[in-house]
Amino acid sequence: MDLNNIQIGIINISDRASQGIYEDLPGKAILSTLNQYLDSAFEPVYRVIPDEQDLIEKTLIEMSEMGCCLIVTSGGTGPSPRDVTPEATEAVCQKILPGFGELMRQVSLKYVPTAILSRQTAGIRDKSLIINLPGKPKSIRECLDAVFPAVPYCIDLIGGPYLKTDENVIKAFRPKST
Amino acid sequence: MDLNNIQIGIINISDRASQGIYEDLPGKAILSTLNQYLDSAFEPVYRVIPDEQDLIEKTLIEMSEMGCCLIVTSGGTGPSPRDVTPEATEAVCQKILPGFGELMRQVSLKYVPTAILSRQTAGIRDKSLIINLPGKPKSIRECLDAVFPAVPYCIDLIGGPYLKTDENVIKAFRPKST
Amino acid sequence: MDLNNIQIGIINISDRASQGIYEDLPGKAILSTLNQYLDSAFEPVYRVIPDEQDLIEKTLIEMSEMGCCLIVTSGGTGPSPRDVTPEATEAVCQKILPGFGELMRQVSLKYVPTAILSRQTAGIRDKSLIINLPGKPKSIRECLDAVFPAVPYCIDLIGGPYLKTDENVIKAFRPKST
Repeated sequence: MDLNNIQIGIINISDRASQGIYEDLPGKAILSTLNQYLDSAFEPVYRVIPDEQDLIEKTLIEMSEMGCCLIVTSGGTGPSPRDVTPEATEAVCQKILPGFGELMRQVSLKYVPTAILSRQTAGIRDKSLIINLPGKPKSIRECLDAVFPAVPYCIDLIGGPYLKTDENVIKAFRPKST
Repeated sequence: MDLNNIQIGIINISDRASQGIYEDLPGKAILSTLNQYLDSAFEPVYRVIPDEQDLIEKTLIEMSEMGCCLIVTSGGTGPSPRDVTPEATEAVCQKILPGFGELMRQVSLKYVPTAILSRQTAGIRDKSLIINLPGKPKSIRECLDAVFPAVPYCIDLIGGPYLKTDENVIKAFRPKST
Repeated sequence: MDLNNIQIGIINISDRASQGIYEDLPGKAILSTLNQYLDSAFEPVYRVIPDEQDLIEKTLIEMSEMGCCLIVTSGGTGPSPRDVTPEATEAVCQKILPGFGELMRQVSLKYVPTAILSRQTAGIRDKSLIINLPGKPKSIRECLDAVFPAVPYCIDLIGGPYLKTDENVIKAFRPKST
């Protein structure tokens, strides 16, 4: 267990969860999964907010500025007019990493043909990696299992803290530098 | 058979087909495929136009405004200077759905390595789902078979009419809401 | 062997290689691979430059204007702040071909889960096809093997010279026109 002050942002983006109509299952699913993945201690920074692009952007920027090396969102990635999470993510990121969305859609396609409707993406803002996840707990886990092996090395590359995973749960991959 | 006034736009985008040099095989292939897929009655709105970005945009907007829930284009997605269908599509859509292009290229790659040259995409303008298809009848069917299971649910999500498919031909998938 | 004056640009983009700290292995790997692939004689136009977006753009434009039908870059596609090769590529291209990046990431994913961190892309500027490759010689070859079968036809489509491959090494695919 290292203690280099790791903060991870978790944002459940949902009109109905933010009004208390739905229980915040996606946020809890993400937190529980990260607790299983990570040997490193981390402090979760947790929000449930409605599908408002301005507010999503503001929350992403705040979490990045407070030092979250990883910010994970759930929800708001579909084709409906209220789905604006990818728009907010692209607006605040300096670099977009299309490989995350491609791989997550490919994994979800094994389960549901509607996976192609998800516009989920990932990107870098300053020293934060932002990843959009779907809204359903089962799909959240499938997507995180697929992309998380690349997350600790990505955070190394952008100057963030060293994330140590529990290798019995998920194996982080760090290529040897040339 | 329901009759909730379903309109579907079909646009064959091709300089030579629009001049009558080529027969409009792609448009006919799309119409024939949709007739096989759909149990719902629908009214096709049909155009054959040259590879002019302004005209493509104008046609997409007109079809969307007249109420087409689905607009399918063929042709104009390659790397040649005259190929401008994806540009026109991106210009008129509020949301781009990258999963459609990814899946269609992946399916086409099973047949031809040049599938990676296709820039075909899909997106939402107001209450219309716009999908770019390739220009060859065989590839059109391969691509439609791959993405169509997600189309009726996408149209539900953007407030369009309920599309019922013939499940012996293609099975639409509608996830249960959480 | 035809001799229609084929020029191919090869750019190793690396701060350390451009300072002589690293040997230019990626550029040599690309040149050696192209020599194996191509039966057509070609003249390589070769540069090793630092990760500066302005300089990358300037070099891509120069190579395109001098008539290179194909320009291959290596390096600078990751999430680090100094990685700006895709930005430069997108800035100088009139058309982006997302299928190249999708396929190269998919192929690299068979070897390393960090393949999703690569933002490598491809596009067209005038009569030049520009392709971003990774920085490691092994990954360079894996990526080129995957996409090169589509390269000669792409160059045909944009009005470039006829590239003839050694079919024992790599088989170019040219679909019959409809």
